[in-house]
Amino acid sequence: MTINRQKSKEEVIEALHGVASEMHDKMSKGNPPTMTLPVRSKTNISFDKKLGVYKYGKSKTIRDASVLGSARQLLRALHISEFVEGMISDGKTSTLREMYYISESWGNGKFSTQNESNNLAEDLEIVTKCLREDFGLRPEEDGARIIGNITFEERNRRGDWMRINCRDDVGDSGYGVPYNVEVEKLKLIDEDIDFVMAIETGGMFDRLVENGFDEEARCALIHLKGQPARSTRRIMRRMSEEWNKPILVFTDCDPWSFRIFASIAYGAIKTAHISEYLATKEATYLGITADDILAYDLPSDELTKQDLGALQAELSDPRFSTGWWQEQINLMQEIGKKAEQQSLAKYGLDFVTDTYLPEKLSALGLNY
Amino acid sequence: MTINRQKSKEEVIEALHGVASEMHDKMSKGNPPTMTLPVRSKTNISFDKKLGVYKYGKSKTIRDASVLGSARQLLRALHISEFVEGMISDGKTSTLREMYYISESWGNGKFSTQNESNNLAEDLEIVTKCLREDFGLRPEEDGARIIGNITFEERNRRGDWMRINCRDDVGDSGYGVPYNVEVEKLKLIDEDIDFVMAIETGGMFDRLVENGFDEEARCALIHLKGQPARSTRRIMRRMSEEWNKPILVFTDCDPWSFRIFASIAYGAIKTAHISEYLATKEATYLGITADDILAYDLPSDELTKQDLGALQAELSDPRFSTGWWQEQINLMQEIGKKAEQQSLAKYGLDFVTDTYLPEKLSALGLNY
Repeated sequence: MTINRQKSKEEVIEALHGVASEMHDKMSKGNPPTMTLPVRSKTNISFDKKLGVYKYGKSKTIRDASVLGSARQLLRALHISEFVEGMISDGKTSTLREMYYISESWGNGKFSTQNESNNLAEDLEIVTKCLREDFGLRPEEDGARIIGNITFEERNRRGDWMRINCRDDVGDSGYGVPYNVEVEKLKLIDEDIDFVMAIETGGMFDRLVENGFDEEARCALIHLKGQPARSTRRIMRRMSEEWNKPILVFTDCDPWSFRIFASIAYGAIKTAHISEYLATKEATYLGITADDILAYDLPSDELTKQDLGALQAELSDPRFSTGWWQEQINLMQEIGKKAEQQSLAKYGLDFVTDTYLPEKLSALGLNY
Repeated sequence: MTINRQKSKEEVIEALHGVASEMHDKMSKGNPPTMTLPVRSKTNISFDKKLGVYKYGKSKTIRDASVLGSARQLLRALHISEFVEGMISDGKTSTLREMYYISESWGNGKFSTQNESNNLAEDLEIVTKCLREDFGLRPEEDGARIIGNITFEERNRRGDWMRINCRDDVGDSGYGVPYNVEVEKLKLIDEDIDFVMAIETGGMFDRLVENGFDEEARCALIHLKGQPARSTRRIMRRMSEEWNKPILVFTDCDPWSFRIFASIAYGAIKTAHISEYLATKEATYLGITADDILAYDLPSDELTKQDLGALQAELSDPRFSTGWWQEQINLMQEIGKKAEQQSLAKYGLDFVTDTYLPEKLSALGLNY
């Protein structure tokens, strides 16, 4: 699937009409309407070595309206299409939660759970080759915060383009990334940085900001807020592509943080249909590593049973198949420990910016 | 306890020295050092009817260094004092998590859990009559987002005062409230609003923003992000006091949301020593109410066993002792239902701003 990011409102509406036409065509030939989709489960995800990202495989599932459950899904798809078309005409957007409640008036198409409506929205992305953002459907999650000497233009709700420098025009909490970071909403205008550093925890983000690390090391700092939102992954991808900047990922050392990195670099299962669009395969994992726990004698916690299970699964995950990751995961299993970013504070508040990051960056060939 | 919010760096350091002097005085008289604190549990919280907020009662606990556990707490208090004094001199701040890790080098004073260090930081607030923010100690949680025609000046990390209008100078995600909203960091400059509306969920906040409700109804919108951070509660208090604006609280209809309201209006147990400073007793609960579930026939969910337990506890909570709250809670128990803010979307994306809020505001005498 290739997503053409120059879709106009008219093209999005046309793509949605395509869903209805397909059903209509089947019916006019006397057959029950259908909708064909890739199987959206782990078994049908494979690692595209050429692209370096996760993609759906060839298994397809056909929703055939002669089965009641599938008929309901087709009905819902039509309702969503109508709802989205209305929003596009009115210049509106909606949270996925709102759409769930709006389905109250869809009769037999009413959703029983939020999960059903979320999944169907993703199905429609696949079928129409549009993005949820094109439909004006939003998650509840907050986007990232950014601080650094980079300049965006954001189109605000009045339709005006507003220029914001993420160092000079924002307060301490930084620039809040909107849910839609496409060209029609956000432009990357100017930068004076050498790299981008994505940070898992708010505490560490604030530490680097307070220590002026963005200025000293000439970088933009992004607070990921845990597992990063689509908009966060997309904006990193754009900075990598349009500005050609390295993206370094700085997280805790635990198996769940490794997955944060993997979703940034290679994509995630839920969004495998748009990995090429969200993933930044040039992203580099900076730390904390199992090596660091030993080298810096960091305060650490025992791996739990869940942690050990997750690590074991990662050993056979193609995203962690490189020799380096295999070594790090094996070492972690061996020492049985995990550690947080903020554990670097053991050596004082400046250790991370005076010692740890310079050493790690220099090992990557980035001196400052 | 009265907090004087004009504390200079020198006064904060002096207050911390006071903790050490008290211990020193005891020792120089041949007695083990002590630290006297109010009992910090639910049993020692009472509702101050005059002030309209929760406060600690008269029960005191004396930490006496002749007991090992207490001696350790006194030692830690001294270490924290030293650490904070260092930060104040260097113009630094620290997350509570960083302080926990920094205690690695405090020998017998090392914290075993994060909770211990958090609690001791609050103890020191009580003893010194300073605020955690004076000490430069921060939580990890994010502050609120604000959109509306109000203007702040925030002192940025370079020490410059930066003027930000929360309608014109911010992107769609709004102004991010910093962790410290005291006069030395944030000034309330100007406003052109009639009231402030605090909103529980991001989805509803974004809905009101998209629908231009802040402009139409001349209000500032605040996204609480669930149970509001101290800085969020404090900035609402300041807007109420300095600008004399009504604060309306718009949340889901469930017992946990009622507690969000109560912590805004009357204070919370953990911060009972600074209720006078954080709580806005003029805050009004706007909805969603049990009445609304019936009047607007809102999609709802069954109350769980936990919900029912929480409601029952609220019936005897002095913060909900008014006739109105008692009625609402009784009605909820009777119908056995709860509902989300976003369930208003049942009637379309504009129902909340075209119908629901105008009707509710008009019932409060706020027409627009």
